[in-house]
Amino acid sequence: MSRINVTYRISAARDQLEGIARALALEQSVEVPAEVVTDPFIAESIMGRVVEVRAAEDDAPHEVVIGLATATTGLDVAQTVNMLFGNSSLHAHVELVDVDFPPEFLAHFSGPRFGIEGIRRILQSGPRPLTCAALKPQGLSTEALASLAYTLACSGVDIVKDDHGLADQAYSPFPQRIAACQRAIARASRETGRACLYAPSLVGSPGALVAQAQIAREAGVGAVLLAPALVGMPVFHELVALHVEVPVIAHPAYAGAVRVAPPLLLGKLFRWLGADAVIFPNFGGRFAYSREDCAGIANNARGAWGGYATTLPVPAGGLTTDRVTELVGFYGPDVMLLIGGALLMPAERLSERTRNFVAAVKTGHAAYAATCGVATG
Amino acid sequence: MSRINVTYRISAARDQLEGIARALALEQSVEVPAEVVTDPFIAESIMGRVVEVRAAEDDAPHEVVIGLATATTGLDVAQTVNMLFGNSSLHAHVELVDVDFPPEFLAHFSGPRFGIEGIRRILQSGPRPLTCAALKPQGLSTEALASLAYTLACSGVDIVKDDHGLADQAYSPFPQRIAACQRAIARASRETGRACLYAPSLVGSPGALVAQAQIAREAGVGAVLLAPALVGMPVFHELVALHVEVPVIAHPAYAGAVRVAPPLLLGKLFRWLGADAVIFPNFGGRFAYSREDCAGIANNARGAWGGYATTLPVPAGGLTTDRVTELVGFYGPDVMLLIGGALLMPAERLSERTRNFVAAVKTGHAAYAATCGVATG
Repeated sequence: MSRINVTYRISAARDQLEGIARALALEQSVEVPAEVVTDPFIAESIMGRVVEVRAAEDDAPHEVVIGLATATTGLDVAQTVNMLFGNSSLHAHVELVDVDFPPEFLAHFSGPRFGIEGIRRILQSGPRPLTCAALKPQGLSTEALASLAYTLACSGVDIVKDDHGLADQAYSPFPQRIAACQRAIARASRETGRACLYAPSLVGSPGALVAQAQIAREAGVGAVLLAPALVGMPVFHELVALHVEVPVIAHPAYAGAVRVAPPLLLGKLFRWLGADAVIFPNFGGRFAYSREDCAGIANNARGAWGGYATTLPVPAGGLTTDRVTELVGFYGPDVMLLIGGALLMPAERLSERTRNFVAAVKTGHAAYAATCGVATG
Repeated sequence: MSRINVTYRISAARDQLEGIARALALEQSVEVPAEVVTDPFIAESIMGRVVEVRAAEDDAPHEVVIGLATATTGLDVAQTVNMLFGNSSLHAHVELVDVDFPPEFLAHFSGPRFGIEGIRRILQSGPRPLTCAALKPQGLSTEALASLAYTLACSGVDIVKDDHGLADQAYSPFPQRIAACQRAIARASRETGRACLYAPSLVGSPGALVAQAQIAREAGVGAVLLAPALVGMPVFHELVALHVEVPVIAHPAYAGAVRVAPPLLLGKLFRWLGADAVIFPNFGGRFAYSREDCAGIANNARGAWGGYATTLPVPAGGLTTDRVTELVGFYGPDVMLLIGGALLMPAERLSERTRNFVAAVKTGHAAYAATCGVATG
């Protein structure tokens, strides 16, 4: 029987570590004391096992690796999350750091359907960093949002996404808003001769999400935005598999899990669930993710993994054009830079600032390519 | 336009607090700098407002209250969570502590359908503490689980619930398991003449949950167990409203992964979503919730709130019979005590230990009633 190796970070005194590791192996599997497990099948094939205890040189945090039986997941998304971190998420001293799924587990899920290559194919883009801008603030009328979308698309960004705060609100109802914004983007694409995708934000209960996905499909949108932690990771996975035929951009809203390491949650688990691109708080912005976490997210999103397509990293959160060259150098060409609010302020020079952003990415990429000897697209 | 007053706990230097509060009001509403908001409707009716800044006497944590426009929620569960804590969940210095929904917002949602009174009516119980036990460990066959259910029900517990680790696994497939356990409980009820409810655990993607709810309904189960954080809060709410006709017990699995205060998440938000009972890690057990948090959960679950039915608090997590009197004294009669693993060890005296647990609750309640002058039921 195969095992999923799960790495947890433990904040505790060093002499308690072995005991905590054994308790964790029980908590995330049989959830009873080991003495209760008298059935040999359960003891051998179901009960979690301590695979490794990595005591830190000095004080905490330490790491432990627990082997969980793949069979306990029932190959279901919700139950997998339950087995990885159901009860232990309630333990303040435990953080979920990494997961190593066995090949037959991975093979049961499809991962991203488009990935970086698929998104490039649709955009007819070579291996260059992509650009993204956001429609906001919420409260604008449908007409104002569509006009904003048109300007952004004409100014050369690759993807125009809804702010994740846009939902089905009275001041810009979902059906009209999605139709108007998609028409605006399509008109801009026709006029510029350059592909641009509109990614509306889908948010709601499962029934509402299916209805929104259908409206978006009928409007002909080029991508969608979905927040897995907000709608529920199992919902995200099922919706993408059954009801969405375009690339999916995952948004980190409500994913601020202190106790799940960002490279695992945003880079690995969201990719497992089928995200083609993943937005995350860039280092040095208005969110506090570290350089290491951002590199970890990008590595997990783009690295070789069980035959899955890659996921496009989308650093965001208070980005400004003056950081573009630095970030293209940091992430390389397989990235999409997202600038939101900074393009909108003040409103009268939106187009100029957006063109500057797009040009800066091109310049930054040329500099990167000259240094690193990669092709420009 | 009405506002939702949201309280956040802030870890920061005191002189940064005002700026952080203003940033939070923007982040959780328009998500652009205030200068960008030139539209008077947005500035007046959509943009978040700082309602109160409560600097702590000494150092952090401080508290701030932000007024969010109810209109931004679209009266949708996922979007409400998005507005309360979408982006700010990514800020390590911010914790979501409390929410004050306006009456017209609350009126749009139904809350618990049964609540404490409804559960008591089904169990034909007076105002006494109820008892609950769990079917585990996972890995047991369907027959072994049904036999365990029969023994627990015969020994006098009010509700027998699945361990939340039981899903649709190869070693005890959901349909057969639910039918067998429900038959066992029904037989025990007939023999003892005492009501006992079986609460199977539903877990999976929306499609699987609907199918499981139907199987459970056809089997005639008396309650269900669902983990809102695992399946997604919007899914929980929709499933309960549309597909479940019996009391719903909310489980806290994966709910520790977000930076939301337990009294709010487990006591208030789960009640808002329709939980009739809520399991939470009791103080002094193998989880680290404080007495204050447990009292806060119980108060939020049982207090008067917008005409909603109450939610039954279910403290759990390493409970043992020797703590029953203490806990009945702490929580009073409107509680259900859940003992899991401790009843099962060692297996041969399960019935005796379960009877002792039930008797201890009765004794504890009699002592409590004599002291406090409440009726015994």
